[in-house]
Amino acid sequence: MKPINIGILGLGTVGSGAVGVLRNNAAEISRRLGRDVNVLMVATRSEEKARAVCTPETKVTADPFDVIKHPEIDIVVELFGGTDIAKDLVLQAIENGKHVVTANKKLLAEYGNEIFALAEQKNVMVNFEAAVAGGIPIIKALREGLSANNIRTIAGIINGTSNFILSEMREKGSDFADVLKQAQALGYAEADPTFDIEGHDAGHKITIMSALAFGTPVNFNACYLEGISKLDSRDIKYAEELGYRVKLLGITRKSEKGIELRVHPTLIPESRLLANVNGVMNAVRVDADMVGETLYYGPGAGSLPTASAVVADIIDISRLITADSGNRVPHLAFQASEVKAQRMLDMDEIISSYYLRVEADDKPGVLGQIANLLAKENVSIEALIQKGVIDKTNAEIVILTHSTIEKQIKNAIAEIEALDSVNTPVVMIRMESLHDKRGE
Amino acid sequence: MKPINIGILGLGTVGSGAVGVLRNNAAEISRRLGRDVNVLMVATRSEEKARAVCTPETKVTADPFDVIKHPEIDIVVELFGGTDIAKDLVLQAIENGKHVVTANKKLLAEYGNEIFALAEQKNVMVNFEAAVAGGIPIIKALREGLSANNIRTIAGIINGTSNFILSEMREKGSDFADVLKQAQALGYAEADPTFDIEGHDAGHKITIMSALAFGTPVNFNACYLEGISKLDSRDIKYAEELGYRVKLLGITRKSEKGIELRVHPTLIPESRLLANVNGVMNAVRVDADMVGETLYYGPGAGSLPTASAVVADIIDISRLITADSGNRVPHLAFQASEVKAQRMLDMDEIISSYYLRVEADDKPGVLGQIANLLAKENVSIEALIQKGVIDKTNAEIVILTHSTIEKQIKNAIAEIEALDSVNTPVVMIRMESLHDKRGE
Repeated sequence: MKPINIGILGLGTVGSGAVGVLRNNAAEISRRLGRDVNVLMVATRSEEKARAVCTPETKVTADPFDVIKHPEIDIVVELFGGTDIAKDLVLQAIENGKHVVTANKKLLAEYGNEIFALAEQKNVMVNFEAAVAGGIPIIKALREGLSANNIRTIAGIINGTSNFILSEMREKGSDFADVLKQAQALGYAEADPTFDIEGHDAGHKITIMSALAFGTPVNFNACYLEGISKLDSRDIKYAEELGYRVKLLGITRKSEKGIELRVHPTLIPESRLLANVNGVMNAVRVDADMVGETLYYGPGAGSLPTASAVVADIIDISRLITADSGNRVPHLAFQASEVKAQRMLDMDEIISSYYLRVEADDKPGVLGQIANLLAKENVSIEALIQKGVIDKTNAEIVILTHSTIEKQIKNAIAEIEALDSVNTPVVMIRMESLHDKRGE
Repeated sequence: MKPINIGILGLGTVGSGAVGVLRNNAAEISRRLGRDVNVLMVATRSEEKARAVCTPETKVTADPFDVIKHPEIDIVVELFGGTDIAKDLVLQAIENGKHVVTANKKLLAEYGNEIFALAEQKNVMVNFEAAVAGGIPIIKALREGLSANNIRTIAGIINGTSNFILSEMREKGSDFADVLKQAQALGYAEADPTFDIEGHDAGHKITIMSALAFGTPVNFNACYLEGISKLDSRDIKYAEELGYRVKLLGITRKSEKGIELRVHPTLIPESRLLANVNGVMNAVRVDADMVGETLYYGPGAGSLPTASAVVADIIDISRLITADSGNRVPHLAFQASEVKAQRMLDMDEIISSYYLRVEADDKPGVLGQIANLLAKENVSIEALIQKGVIDKTNAEIVILTHSTIEKQIKNAIAEIEALDSVNTPVVMIRMESLHDKRGE
């Protein structure tokens, strides 16, 4: 068979990784695919960089529109990132009848509906394995591997920067700010780390997975985002004493009331596999009605791991170019006609259990007052621990609750904070048991 | 689109599970696939059972050849198991132009080459996600998700019965025989448990994964099998004291010298995710050159989890029936013309590290003698621990070695056993560090 011609937009970390994977493993890829993958053209502002990573046969252009217009290119690989020029390029490439591979989670979480609709109209494929959890083939698992299931819940560690910071805070007892500096020095965090540590990146990824799981349009606006920058290392320590670890999770869950879609620090029992995913690694746990619990673990970022997913998408598309388009795996896992908006729950409506830390005057009766206020809001207590006196007059109280509606815990917190004996805001961190109904 | 018609051979655990999944999730499957899946006929000796699980429209026959001959059936789902009638049925179904889905690991590990060759000749697909690790979509990950990689090593906990027994032995300090009885009472082990506890089942699965990883024919005869029935709970305890857990692993690895293919109890560091896979759960760790380490976890057996994989295969085939057959994912991941036998290493040639336990007279000089014999065979010692005197005259010595060629450790063991002061056979268990070159 004749080679597949691809054009790559951007030679940054992932772009140069993709060229590297295609060069390093050309023989292996050809043994699998039955044809060669030819990098016909790359768009980059650095001719020098292109010449360093590409073979002499690859054309280099500074104008990305040269790539998407090129008549011999079958697949456009968009690795610019962001939503400005990338959106225009992807839509134009589709208009031109090109198949698209992208690692751009922001683009798909925010404009995926428009992009997929145009792709269906033009009978082209847009693949995006690298957009979620880097090298882990989680999109394939959700769209194909678990296709016999009603998916119930997805919970994932899907931001390596945050997971590195939380792992270090736990292991060394360090404060957030110190570990962030260390992560920046190691290249695990950007100079402006907001996107990673405040949950935006994880939000984009869980938004995409939520749509795939439940057959809805992507809806990033409905995603609740709470990052890790305000976490106190004390709470990580107390959580550990109680048998929990704190992870930044992206969570989406479907219940009769609607769909939950949220990113926030979460206590999980230390015996769960997710609790043992450390450093920059990612993992996604899926709970589905027929198979039960499955989990997918691997590197969520990095040049070659992400490129591994990009190249797998190129191979998949190459195989399906000649297939009838009506029988392809649908972009959002469900037939386009079956993708329907569903009610997205407000955070006040979600059901979770909670870790609370209250600083209160060290006086008789305070514990009772707090317990009464929780009971009044129907919040049932799993554990209430007086952590001891932190200064002459203040005591710390840590509370773990059973499952409750978030509105009720918020009401209870407001009432606790209104007590004369409570002088600082109550710390609240959500908890997930991630209990497996089938396995251990 | 008109429904896909399937015929199911066998209504045992997995067969009735498959019918159940197709019935429970008919709407969800149709939303994904864009057409219905119709169970046109089932072959079972129990008409009563068929009527209990199937809809009235499903034809029931006692003769499985009725299914593979039926002109309207597109996909034959073989769930009889074993290699006698199942082999004939699968080959005949392919001859008749039917696509096949099977969960039959023994059939594929032993006769896969013949079956896949005929399938290619007849332009039909044979899918087998359920044959390895039950509900975990590991075949899809190996054939498609990691297609940009040279796979280097696969190590998996792929027999739930053995993992349950080892988990219980560790947690409760119980002996093998006692836990086996408990597993039998719970339905986790068969009345004749040989197939599971002696490594045959894991051997079939790692044989299939090895072929997929390295582009070789399946070669079950080359698989070394060592089960867990001779494990002493003492060694599990000592391993734990040293920071290791004992798991029955299927391992396949490619090096310049050839391919390793083996099943045996293995010490792994307790911090590894694989070490924390407990009970009947399965997990497969894949090390590949571009992505690094990925891991796939979930239920390896059970009616509905295994059926989840069977139905995913039915959906995949339904999508690809109209695709040109030259562009399908090849059965063994590589184009049939590229599947080539490679040198399989004898166990004497593999490289591993080792746990040894030696019972020796509690006399001065014995440790030195043992250390000298290991040094003579170029075996380098990581740790040598005198575990104390076990009776009036005997001491136990536990040794952990660095990586060495198995032939050398066997030579050293023979020489240690020949010492006057050593009166019982040396216990040897292999160790794998499963060190990730990229991640934590």
